Amino acid sequence: MTERVVFFLSDQTGVTAETLGHSLITQYSGQKFRQVTLPFIDTVDKAREAVATINEACAAGKPRPIVFSTLVQPDLRAIVRDSDGLHLDIFDEFLEPLTAELGEEPVLELGLSHGMSDIDAYMRRIEATNFALANDDGGVSRNYDKADVILIGVSRSGKTPTCLYLALQYGVYAANFPLTDEELENGALPGFLLHQTKKLYGLTIAPDRLVEIRKERRPIGRYSSAQQVRYELREADKIFRRYGIPHVNTTSFSIEEISSRILDSTGVERRVRP
Amino acid sequence: MTERVVFFLSDQTGVTAETLGHSLITQYSGQKFRQVTLPFIDTVDKAREAVATINEACAAGKPRPIVFSTLVQPDLRAIVRDSDGLHLDIFDEFLEPLTAELGEEPVLELGLSHGMSDIDAYMRRIEATNFALANDDGGVSRNYDKADVILIGVSRSGKTPTCLYLALQYGVYAANFPLTDEELENGALPGFLLHQTKKLYGLTIAPDRLVEIRKERRPIGRYSSAQQVRYELREADKIFRRYGIPHVNTTSFSIEEISSRILDSTGVERRVRP
Repeated sequence: MTERVVFFLSDQTGVTAETLGHSLITQYSGQKFRQVTLPFIDTVDKAREAVATINEACAAGKPRPIVFSTLVQPDLRAIVRDSDGLHLDIFDEFLEPLTAELGEEPVLELGLSHGMSDIDAYMRRIEATNFALANDDGGVSRNYDKADVILIGVSRSGKTPTCLYLALQYGVYAANFPLTDEELENGALPGFLLHQTKKLYGLTIAPDRLVEIRKERRPIGRYSSAQQVRYELREADKIFRRYGIPHVNTTSFSIEEISSRILDSTGVERRVRP
Repeated sequence: MTERVVFFLSDQTGVTAETLGHSLITQYSGQKFRQVTLPFIDTVDKAREAVATINEACAAGKPRPIVFSTLVQPDLRAIVRDSDGLHLDIFDEFLEPLTAELGEEPVLELGLSHGMSDIDAYMRRIEATNFALANDDGGVSRNYDKADVILIGVSRSGKTPTCLYLALQYGVYAANFPLTDEELENGALPGFLLHQTKKLYGLTIAPDRLVEIRKERRPIGRYSSAQQVRYELREADKIFRRYGIPHVNTTSFSIEEISSRILDSTGVERRVRP
């Protein structure tokens, strides 16, 4: 199958163009796409370079590239609009109805979605990340009073990456506590968690998947055996039910989805918006 | 100023609607917005609930809410389109030109942008995150051969959150090494980094900003004094120049921007696309 190039053009990082474009192109299952991000297009020269890059991808016999553009400045948008690719521009499509509704002309300046007000946001995200690191895997600090949410689950159920994502993306204070042999054998949480049960949120996962993940870490031995994994997940589930802890099965979810479901289910507020 | 509510509707996490909408509404500086994400709208009942929520926000005297929708399924889109808010729908705007160009009807199924092929992506992101954690702050493992990039800079210049973001978002293997008194006094990198200089990327930051950040951690003492901070940044800069290490000043950048600039400048490939 001939590969079609998809460009994401941005005067900033390209994340908006990437997420928008990705959610659209994945709806076309019969295509093969190659994705290329062209970030930081913030001068006339860089806009012309981007057009040259797109036009090169239009060489004879190749399918026309698709271009998702989130450039803000009108002069740069005018330049890239003239490439040979199929140009899809979020500012073209949405600024007009927004301007009519708000009764105000847009500023059309780049960098506004990461303005100086974001210094606070930066600090909050850094602090939340440090909190997640200090309170990872039942770490020494156990500063659970400050936590917005405390994730619990067996080893490799996804606690650490989810906590870090919640911190980095949303500035949420997420701690985590691993369910180890001690809790699983006793079917009980340790005393210091008992007055925090309202903050607890459980992660579970299909046994086969967890075996696969653990084998990446330790290919042989009890830790990654199907029997051990099934035992741990069963006992963890009993603990979730005993204490009425909401939980999510992460088997087919991405880290973003797990994080969003936790916020949605717990009602924990985003402290920062990306 | 009257606050206007902006809704982000999604059958998934809402991240696409949030990033799209945020980049647009920040162009209108004369408005006050309150942002509300309504994720996981994947049934007729949930779509009707969302409409009720939007219509409540339309009560007498309040400005009409703005609705950014990324719902995929046509029946659900039809329901939410009838809310009293200003409806901006990325699928309405972009599916038609894409379908014409690709000569293929869209699948219109939800969850495709996080399909089962993403199990690989999940594993890679988790592995990259574990790598970042194990190789944080010159950590014991020093598995620099496997690193795509090694960030260096003084304490609190943003190395750890940037490494974690690169791992979680892009599956990139990012290690980091702190420039401490030893390196700063000698003006030299340790021996084990010398055959890795091509992977090195420096982070620097304005002295005032770094003082502010360090004071959050330790309000008094040498660590957060202006004199010490200026000295460290000056010596770090000398090291960057001595070894020809590319670097970025992170003062007015978000973690996403720092990460994107590093990928753009080094040419390190994203191993995963969000």
